Amino acid sequence: MSESRTEISSLGEFGLIEHLTKNIEIKNASTIVSVGDDAAVIDHFGKQTVITNDLLLEGIHFDLMYTPLKHLGYKSVVVNLSDIYAMNAVPTQIILSIGISSRFSVEALEEFYEGVYAACEAYDVDLIGGDTSTSQKGFVISVTALGEVAPDKFVKRSGAQKGDLLCVSGDLGAAFLGLTLLEREKQIFIENPTIQPDLEGEKYVVGRILKPEARKDIVQFFSEKELLPTSMIDVSDGLSSEILHICKQSRVGCVLYEEKIPIGEETKMAAFKFNLDPTACALSGGEDYELLFTIKQDDFDKLGGIDIAIIGYITDAEAGSTIFTKGGGKHPITAQGWNAFK
Amino acid sequence: MSESRTEISSLGEFGLIEHLTKNIEIKNASTIVSVGDDAAVIDHFGKQTVITNDLLLEGIHFDLMYTPLKHLGYKSVVVNLSDIYAMNAVPTQIILSIGISSRFSVEALEEFYEGVYAACEAYDVDLIGGDTSTSQKGFVISVTALGEVAPDKFVKRSGAQKGDLLCVSGDLGAAFLGLTLLEREKQIFIENPTIQPDLEGEKYVVGRILKPEARKDIVQFFSEKELLPTSMIDVSDGLSSEILHICKQSRVGCVLYEEKIPIGEETKMAAFKFNLDPTACALSGGEDYELLFTIKQDDFDKLGGIDIAIIGYITDAEAGSTIFTKGGGKHPITAQGWNAFK
Repeated sequence: MSESRTEISSLGEFGLIEHLTKNIEIKNASTIVSVGDDAAVIDHFGKQTVITNDLLLEGIHFDLMYTPLKHLGYKSVVVNLSDIYAMNAVPTQIILSIGISSRFSVEALEEFYEGVYAACEAYDVDLIGGDTSTSQKGFVISVTALGEVAPDKFVKRSGAQKGDLLCVSGDLGAAFLGLTLLEREKQIFIENPTIQPDLEGEKYVVGRILKPEARKDIVQFFSEKELLPTSMIDVSDGLSSEILHICKQSRVGCVLYEEKIPIGEETKMAAFKFNLDPTACALSGGEDYELLFTIKQDDFDKLGGIDIAIIGYITDAEAGSTIFTKGGGKHPITAQGWNAFK
Repeated sequence: MSESRTEISSLGEFGLIEHLTKNIEIKNASTIVSVGDDAAVIDHFGKQTVITNDLLLEGIHFDLMYTPLKHLGYKSVVVNLSDIYAMNAVPTQIILSIGISSRFSVEALEEFYEGVYAACEAYDVDLIGGDTSTSQKGFVISVTALGEVAPDKFVKRSGAQKGDLLCVSGDLGAAFLGLTLLEREKQIFIENPTIQPDLEGEKYVVGRILKPEARKDIVQFFSEKELLPTSMIDVSDGLSSEILHICKQSRVGCVLYEEKIPIGEETKMAAFKFNLDPTACALSGGEDYELLFTIKQDDFDKLGGIDIAIIGYITDAEAGSTIFTKGGGKHPITAQGWNAFK
């Protein structure tokens, strides 16, 4: 980290925005007017626009004690892009507004923006506007993401039908274990600041929480294979919660097989260290930013060559939502995902 | 205010969103997918999209001691719509994300949303999505507004040219005096809670700060008269600051006549009570949400029948930005608008 410290007040609001956005290069032809006016302007060339916004609040969604600002900037963008991909759309632009207290230096904000620009670069999106303000307390981040989709090719949560296959990309549960690990190290540090964090061998799970990626490749795969899922959602609150969203909004039930839930080796090892059940971490952990979706059985042959697992199938609503466990048990699926108000 | 208090935790995040959005009626054909999915979907039917986002943070942008929640909801929407009008576009959708502490009840949030929906109704916009979260401290509001404009009919800040007339809608300075008044009453109340606020005769200036309106009618007027301003900005930070934005981004100078700046009688009276110069309030006060714009001299005849004042004209950049005072003085215009980092 740089040794110098420039006070934000030395630049002022407009100076700060100029400073942080001076190197922007526009990548999308749809970006007509970018940063620097009352609003940005976008052209669509006949496509439809997908749009989402998420707030990330210090102390609720992230802890600056163990979250590097560059990673935070990257993640703030990625979690919004994940919502765009979850509609089967391709992200094109973001708008970033932040509220910061005076304890932040210009150099700290530069680190945050480095991460933001790295995500824009990795996902080919343009930063086209936003608002910068002081906050009384805590770092406030608001990201609006826009994406484009061919007319009526977007995929909602509500289209799953009986007989459809329930699929998920990648592997689950790692982000929750990464968070658990960082929280433990934080407690140890608070109690004894001389002890260095022990993250050896935990690179994967820590990386999943601090620097998640959105599944751009899955949406590209759908496009190449001409595979249109019947419903889709991103896994931000835990697999159970997301499955129940799809079932509720599609008015269907489902069967889920525990043995089919994809969980990485590193995740299992981390779970065992904490004496946690890896399946519970996958079902209730959250923040994996994988894609959960349903496809018609006829599209089964189009899968392959990519990390997509079939974890169950869709039933009538009357059958409810059921998980078959490895031990042969049968239980209703319950949402124990992250509830911001508990 | 209702006597009952429902804890937000009794509904949970998803229950809360459902509760607050259950009565939404979609007004715009462009709204394809609204609240309840990973993202919203918009069609454009050949138009371009204008998009903006603003954060409103408790203690920085508003004070709940004297801001009714319904007014706050209304204002949160309106200040964003003002940015859309400032691009010569028509607002169509908003996305609202909020962060709230547990001291808020469901009833309090309902009041806030009543104001949000009242603004949506008044300006014909659809609430199409958002995010609801806890905050550690303070009420956090993020509004993204979208609007539509016929291709290339948007108006930027950067199009003013030498000889153009400098115009402003409505009257200026009132919002700042309303704020000054409310701040005074707050201090009196803190020192002696038995004294009732004295806002008699100040309805106009207090209304301008608590429940501002965006100038929908001005943009409609432009459309009817086929009048395309050469540059435009909304007056959120004070007239001086906005004029300097137009001059800087258009690379021009200007002449402004103090006597032409529109200031209401109620505003003048409130200014005199506080021993403030009404012109200074208009130049540096901010939050008026009027439109400042430039038009070609040839379009002069199209004005009339609406509250638009010509307050000066555009010059070469070399001439700088000058105000001619009522007393015959000549001074450079300096930005003393609201700077969030001072």
